[in-house]
Amino acid sequence: MASYTHQTAPTQFVNANGIRFAYRRFGKAGGAPLIFNMHFNGTMDHWDPAVTDGFAKDREVILFDNAGIASSSGEVPTSIEEMAANAVAFIKALGLTQVDVLGFSLGGLVAQEITIAGGALVRRLVLVGTGPRGGEGMATLTPEAQAVFGAKYENPDEVWLGAFFTPSKASQAAGREYLRRFRLRTEDRDPEANEKVAPAQVEALGKWGARQANSYQYLKQIAQPTLVVNGSSDVIIYTINSYILQQNLPDAQLILYPDANHGSQYQYPARFVRHVSAFLSE
Amino acid sequence: MASYTHQTAPTQFVNANGIRFAYRRFGKAGGAPLIFNMHFNGTMDHWDPAVTDGFAKDREVILFDNAGIASSSGEVPTSIEEMAANAVAFIKALGLTQVDVLGFSLGGLVAQEITIAGGALVRRLVLVGTGPRGGEGMATLTPEAQAVFGAKYENPDEVWLGAFFTPSKASQAAGREYLRRFRLRTEDRDPEANEKVAPAQVEALGKWGARQANSYQYLKQIAQPTLVVNGSSDVIIYTINSYILQQNLPDAQLILYPDANHGSQYQYPARFVRHVSAFLSE
Repeated sequence: MASYTHQTAPTQFVNANGIRFAYRRFGKAGGAPLIFNMHFNGTMDHWDPAVTDGFAKDREVILFDNAGIASSSGEVPTSIEEMAANAVAFIKALGLTQVDVLGFSLGGLVAQEITIAGGALVRRLVLVGTGPRGGEGMATLTPEAQAVFGAKYENPDEVWLGAFFTPSKASQAAGREYLRRFRLRTEDRDPEANEKVAPAQVEALGKWGARQANSYQYLKQIAQPTLVVNGSSDVIIYTINSYILQQNLPDAQLILYPDANHGSQYQYPARFVRHVSAFLSE
Repeated sequence: MASYTHQTAPTQFVNANGIRFAYRRFGKAGGAPLIFNMHFNGTMDHWDPAVTDGFAKDREVILFDNAGIASSSGEVPTSIEEMAANAVAFIKALGLTQVDVLGFSLGGLVAQEITIAGGALVRRLVLVGTGPRGGEGMATLTPEAQAVFGAKYENPDEVWLGAFFTPSKASQAAGREYLRRFRLRTEDRDPEANEKVAPAQVEALGKWGARQANSYQYLKQIAQPTLVVNGSSDVIIYTINSYILQQNLPDAQLILYPDANHGSQYQYPARFVRHVSAFLSE
């Protein structure tokens, strides 16, 4: 199994919570596997092999489709907490007792709730391009997100150039490289998320993002060492939310990358893997 | 010369701008040396050998006393720009044409002005526990700084426990280790800064820290790749100022460490050296 990579790892299935979860597992087995939680409307195939294979050299990587998405059965719940409950059920169904959890964007919200619900199941947490409950501009899609996701594209993949990268020449060039990399896997790909996914996820995002009194107080429940990563100029979940996470989590380190938008980890995959690997190994 | 360390490097002297500058130079020669710019009321001996010797394994390190401080002659100027002009003269007097510049606190303000004045002289910039012109709470010493620096201590070194470390048990323990380490050098130490240093530095800080229209605009002049580092809870130059630096510099990465105050690099010296070394080698 150690010889599988992002491109070759077969899609496997496991049942939990009445859902048949699709997942792929590869990399160097031994320590706590790193569980990847995907963004809005994404599938396992939207992860960047430069990132996943980068981690897989030193640790086991597990990608999965949460309930109702792509190759997994069931319905997408309309709350982040229910998405997290499904993810915890999936992790436990694999027989795992301790994991590291990485979440990107929507997946970062789910990762926070996995950590709160899972307790000792989670060893360390990595939050990428994400924010806290009731964060700045999180009650609805930001105006920039509405423009990016509402536009039409000749090649639908190009939506990610606007969502994940800045307008600079260097960032757009990195974005084109990312689009190329996430299409490298040609066999056994996931189907795209169906039309029921986005509305349910938007409803969940809205409920979670709504400002409340003491919105950030819940973060005190996350005692695990946490690494927060984002770009300097995230227009999907504003960068200030990464700062707010760091300031309110009990044990968090923050890294912000220059000239980068929501997908900074795909713009600087080698640097991201190095930073996160060092954090996970500390 | 490669065999010198923080403890053994002799104090040397060079003349420039009518000042006799004291400095120490050690580490692996070859690339751009890393020039250290010291904080309020500090001398070469306040640098942490865990940091300086950590860097010296891979690169050349230069510590110096700016004009009017400790073993250097001259007067402390009452502006950051004049301090930077003295530093540039010192660097050029060593015959150096390209350097990396690291500044901590007041030294971070000087480092910014060195970069603006020095142009191509500076390759990369590292700003630690510092802030921008007219930053938040920078027009005067913060209330916390006034309390820490105004108090009496049985052992005067203990002022740094409050200035550089948080009240947590872990941070205070790290602080005690730092106090021990910066006293390890026993021979050829600097004298303490004399009583004329602090008033001049406070005047310079006040002028530089005063809020003006478009206070942060000058940062666009710093094209060099920059790494901004601070603790989560800096009470001397508030942590938000590190975020403001990152957001306004054209090419800056930010790292904030957990449960750390102004002296985060002394609380996590190994992590700090690893992060900065990776940045300088990118």
